[in-house]
Amino acid sequence: MREISAAKCFGGRQAVYAHDSTSTKTEMKFSVFTPPADVHGEGPYPTLYWLSGLTCTEENFIIKSGFQRYAAALGLMVIGPDTSPRGEGVPDDPDGAYDFGLAAGFYCNATQAPWSEHYQMYDYITKELPALVCDALPVDDARTGVFGHSMGGHGALTVHLKNPKQFKTCSAFAPIVAPSQVPWGRKAFSHYLGADETSWADYDATTLVAKRPSEAEILIDQGTADAFLEEQLKPELFAAAAQAAGQKATVRMQDGYDHSFYFIATFLEDHLRWHKERL
Amino acid sequence: MREISAAKCFGGRQAVYAHDSTSTKTEMKFSVFTPPADVHGEGPYPTLYWLSGLTCTEENFIIKSGFQRYAAALGLMVIGPDTSPRGEGVPDDPDGAYDFGLAAGFYCNATQAPWSEHYQMYDYITKELPALVCDALPVDDARTGVFGHSMGGHGALTVHLKNPKQFKTCSAFAPIVAPSQVPWGRKAFSHYLGADETSWADYDATTLVAKRPSEAEILIDQGTADAFLEEQLKPELFAAAAQAAGQKATVRMQDGYDHSFYFIATFLEDHLRWHKERL
Repeated sequence: MREISAAKCFGGRQAVYAHDSTSTKTEMKFSVFTPPADVHGEGPYPTLYWLSGLTCTEENFIIKSGFQRYAAALGLMVIGPDTSPRGEGVPDDPDGAYDFGLAAGFYCNATQAPWSEHYQMYDYITKELPALVCDALPVDDARTGVFGHSMGGHGALTVHLKNPKQFKTCSAFAPIVAPSQVPWGRKAFSHYLGADETSWADYDATTLVAKRPSEAEILIDQGTADAFLEEQLKPELFAAAAQAAGQKATVRMQDGYDHSFYFIATFLEDHLRWHKERL
Repeated sequence: MREISAAKCFGGRQAVYAHDSTSTKTEMKFSVFTPPADVHGEGPYPTLYWLSGLTCTEENFIIKSGFQRYAAALGLMVIGPDTSPRGEGVPDDPDGAYDFGLAAGFYCNATQAPWSEHYQMYDYITKELPALVCDALPVDDARTGVFGHSMGGHGALTVHLKNPKQFKTCSAFAPIVAPSQVPWGRKAFSHYLGADETSWADYDATTLVAKRPSEAEILIDQGTADAFLEEQLKPELFAAAAQAAGQKATVRMQDGYDHSFYFIATFLEDHLRWHKERL
């Protein structure tokens, strides 16, 4: 782990690290916020993983969301990985589209060439990165949750549902809940996972929750003025599947909010408190 | 005024507008946050002008600082202009340096060619923009303050000291307090105002406060880990001049904070409360 940057923020410390990933065979960067030791002690701290959406790097959330204020007050460590492998030899969308390839790893393990060589984001998020930070940082491995936005909301839901003992709490802002049924997800999965749609089910929150609901409560906030709501997000699909399966889930429709960080910032304190109370 | 963007944020509304400026003879953009009407009524609202630092546009503060949470709670309107004229025909630093020309207008009226044609930021900030927004938006002209960061802290201090009845309250984060005595200011003023340093005094907060202190209290926060502290900022020069002149001023040295938005974000709530209590 190499420290790329660090700054004091709300009494805590916001840093970015880089390391050579065995999962993606690239250098990967991730952000780490550590709460103030003079308030919360030296740790280990309850820890949240933040998964970002399309077009983001490890930087967007730490610059745009304002989460540090709440994490500092609540004593939470927050870790934010990048959204895909990057660098020489990592293939991108042939047309350079924003919704596939670089910054669009969809938190899955690709099985199809040429993507499978580097796009192993599921293993990276659920295995390699937690092992790395648990070894190097004051992370409390027994009190860990996950949350995210849009593509990262999809990541948070699927990572939690598949690993409910590892990622005990889960929330999402404007998540892609049914990637197999919407254009963003169908494009990504057809390339990363191939034409056989049965292989997609393992990365689809709406399919997963029907098969294996978790014992946690899941919190979802969704803005009603979100331009992607009707075509790409469709939270009602997850809500219906969760209800049928007995998964506790709260989907809050927030009047007039769009898909931006202004929406995330507005409801972020609620989410951090939600996780803290349950960890 | 043309609306460029708008989004709901903390119950209020964050917008960006563009208009054709008579001061700069260019299109100018500025941001406007309006607090939630269901909490604070339809206005007019007490209003703060935020002046940004080198390299910034009207966007940095609204994306990176998290001020909307506090402005929404306190019922403040916040207006954030760009930091220089831009566009075809606007001259820039011949070497493309970040500290002069585009994004570095230093909130003065240039008197020297070729800068004087467009770089009329003092008139823009103190006359044209206030007249425009007072006409079009629910701004309470009798309750207006100014604050800013770095070059924008210089702007806030000078704009307040020269117009204490118009900009009644003033605070700054890591301001340039004595531009005539530091490299950033000397470079900018020698181009914008010319070689005769007597003309610089009218835009130098440390010189101004000695001649005409205001009746307001001025709040300054400065990080001790700020890489620009010793060479460019020198808050002790302003503190000494203010004390000698009877200007009430509080300069708080904040241990371990740097020059970034992580520092601004940490102490922003204090500043907004400071202004609200005094307006």
